Amino acid sequence: MTREELHAKIKAQLATFDANDWLLLVREQQAADIADELQQMEADEVHQLLVALPDEELAELFGYFTNTQQDTLLALFTNSDKARLLAAMAHDERVDIYNRLSSEIQSKILPKLAKKEQEDILRLAAYEEGTVGALATSAYVAIRAHMSVGEALQYVRSHAAGMETIYQMYIVDGKQRLLGTLSLRELMTNEDDALISEIMNTELVSVNAQDPRQVAADMIRRYDLLALPVINGGDKLIGIVTVDDAMDVDVEESTEDFHKGGGTLALKDVSIRDASTKTMFLKRAPWLLVLVFANMFSGEVLEYYEDTILTYVALVFFLPLLVDSGGNAGSQSATLMVRALATGDLHMRDWLKTLGREFWVALLLGGAMAIAVFGLGVYRGGLEIAMVVSLSMVLIVIAGSMIGMLLPFILSKFKLDPATASAPLITSIADFVGVMLYFYIAVQMLGMPN
Amino acid sequence: MTREELHAKIKAQLATFDANDWLLLVREQQAADIADELQQMEADEVHQLLVALPDEELAELFGYFTNTQQDTLLALFTNSDKARLLAAMAHDERVDIYNRLSSEIQSKILPKLAKKEQEDILRLAAYEEGTVGALATSAYVAIRAHMSVGEALQYVRSHAAGMETIYQMYIVDGKQRLLGTLSLRELMTNEDDALISEIMNTELVSVNAQDPRQVAADMIRRYDLLALPVINGGDKLIGIVTVDDAMDVDVEESTEDFHKGGGTLALKDVSIRDASTKTMFLKRAPWLLVLVFANMFSGEVLEYYEDTILTYVALVFFLPLLVDSGGNAGSQSATLMVRALATGDLHMRDWLKTLGREFWVALLLGGAMAIAVFGLGVYRGGLEIAMVVSLSMVLIVIAGSMIGMLLPFILSKFKLDPATASAPLITSIADFVGVMLYFYIAVQMLGMPN
Repeated sequence: MTREELHAKIKAQLATFDANDWLLLVREQQAADIADELQQMEADEVHQLLVALPDEELAELFGYFTNTQQDTLLALFTNSDKARLLAAMAHDERVDIYNRLSSEIQSKILPKLAKKEQEDILRLAAYEEGTVGALATSAYVAIRAHMSVGEALQYVRSHAAGMETIYQMYIVDGKQRLLGTLSLRELMTNEDDALISEIMNTELVSVNAQDPRQVAADMIRRYDLLALPVINGGDKLIGIVTVDDAMDVDVEESTEDFHKGGGTLALKDVSIRDASTKTMFLKRAPWLLVLVFANMFSGEVLEYYEDTILTYVALVFFLPLLVDSGGNAGSQSATLMVRALATGDLHMRDWLKTLGREFWVALLLGGAMAIAVFGLGVYRGGLEIAMVVSLSMVLIVIAGSMIGMLLPFILSKFKLDPATASAPLITSIADFVGVMLYFYIAVQMLGMPN
Repeated sequence: MTREELHAKIKAQLATFDANDWLLLVREQQAADIADELQQMEADEVHQLLVALPDEELAELFGYFTNTQQDTLLALFTNSDKARLLAAMAHDERVDIYNRLSSEIQSKILPKLAKKEQEDILRLAAYEEGTVGALATSAYVAIRAHMSVGEALQYVRSHAAGMETIYQMYIVDGKQRLLGTLSLRELMTNEDDALISEIMNTELVSVNAQDPRQVAADMIRRYDLLALPVINGGDKLIGIVTVDDAMDVDVEESTEDFHKGGGTLALKDVSIRDASTKTMFLKRAPWLLVLVFANMFSGEVLEYYEDTILTYVALVFFLPLLVDSGGNAGSQSATLMVRALATGDLHMRDWLKTLGREFWVALLLGGAMAIAVFGLGVYRGGLEIAMVVSLSMVLIVIAGSMIGMLLPFILSKFKLDPATASAPLITSIADFVGVMLYFYIAVQMLGMPN
């Protein structure tokens, strides 16, 4: 079925609703596609279609909406519908929703859930957003070490319903401590009478619930895992993170780093398509205003050299070129460094080695750019100006590159986010340094005007 | 075992090699961690340790090395070792390696492989790098529609060895056409005597082998898949892409977009830690040099207004601030747009709606920045200069934002990579426009000097 056909079928349901047809459509089509179509429609129409679905289908579709959309829809749900939604949703997703409800509504809904669900929500709700704990689900398959492969297979088959994944099993003791892991593949390729304790993996890869969620995604990607066990301060298994959530984390965290790299505060859980003018303003204004003040220092330097400017006005013609070149080279370095630190391609300990190479690269780049600009310098300002401009170019590109390379490392060193070293920030710093270098060199080579 | 202990154990193997100890170490520890340690060592040492391993362990470790490191090591391998490596490696990875060998070595190694392996390599080698086909593996579980669940389970158990995943099965006919899919979970939760044809999913999600690899990663992430079937022009199943490869694609493509966003040509398959000065120079110089020439237009404009500059020298003090602000606002917009287009958060059709909002956001941002700079304008240049600077600020920020927003859309429209709209490129364009606007407004408000 094409997306246009799907769109038409959903629209048709709004006109002449048929519960069976609608359920059949939802069951046969990809939930992501249906959710996409619903997101284009009015909230009350979506509400009407959603609550007509059984728990499982309702919960699956609901999970695809953005936080803003979920909140809008939830306001239309009765408390009973809210409760059946929470009961059926993936454990990690429902905690997010629960945490966004008012405490008044929380206290009304919680008693409507089964005891086990209540405990599960309260336990996961304790973890801060952005941590592994908030991403974890407790719907995993736990087996005991004394089981045989045949018993474990039978157990998995009969307990698969509601589990986030059945492909990775966790062996725990009576105190919920993680003893080992076993994949369904390993289970299936062993003989039925082998003991779990004999075949389980005991070199454990796990993540702490308090760690940032990117840590879990990095481990899942690094070790090619389908799921990663999450433990609390002790060895107690509190849940697992699955690979599909890890993929979403990778993309979301990259997006945040992109936004920061462009000098915008990260837009979390907001689609750019739907973001309001106010949201966009508030995310973009802070850095722009900070940079206005940072840029005033460049003006200060220029004012100091007023007489030089009046005497050699041709210097001004090269001002945008020179300061931009420093900023551009710096943006390149900063972007390369920020990303390499984020992906683990570079570590803090590599900074000195990287600095050495950066110097030679910057010298070559500055040299090439100086040659490119020399001719124009002669043409517009004469040989002396050309020499000032070329020498300045080399030094400004080196300075810009060094700033761009070092700032992310320095931010990292002080436990700050290296992604803060955005292109606009580097440009502004490089500008200030560039203006100073340029006029200092000019005065040295051309002499101070009387 | 900590990383320090692992490091010490590997080093100890170099001193007093013991094949059994070494194999035990490799089997018990995470391959990614061992590969990490090996990557810090000399190639001949690594070679010596690697070739002492059985095929499977050799192949798994080898897969973790970067392309450059793989090529260095391969040069030390005998052709027989090369052949046993290729035979044992993951099908998608070995094609990459095969494609990088000289045709002379290719023709020496290929005959050493089993007929089936030869065909597999040659088939996948036909797909261009960066396509889904080059990422696909043919080691998937194919079953027939007439099997029962019990038969299929038995088949999976006995054919698991060497398969990339057994958690997703593909139902094909005699002509290798894809008829349906079935997860191991669905298989296990059905009764043993159910027929595959009755329970398989026939609403297929698949990807074309010629599509860019990001398409496959996007689908896997969107539909929460563990594997995605890859078909050729017809309906013929040629392989699958697994979620672990999709995760790597997401991160690698994001990294390329980051590099482009910073004005660097993408560094592919090269670790920044290991990249040579020459590589870094060649990746960074092109855009910097292009931007040098682009920036010369700003100089042209300034030369045109030479008399204005000499009469109102205070205008120069605000030049870096104004042109930077336009570039910064533009970098913000471009970064937001490029990323939103890449993640599918925005589509081409949204451009008009986005443009409208962008105008209002830019007006507010420009207004706020104009207010911030007005006082300083009065202090440094008097009321008239302050008014010129403030009005210019508003218009320059609007212009910069519009350029930053529209350029990615325009590039997309012409089937070019929107990520080319890098912060440095936007800055340079915004500078030129900014200088023109600034001096045009100055002449209009202050009058042309005599």
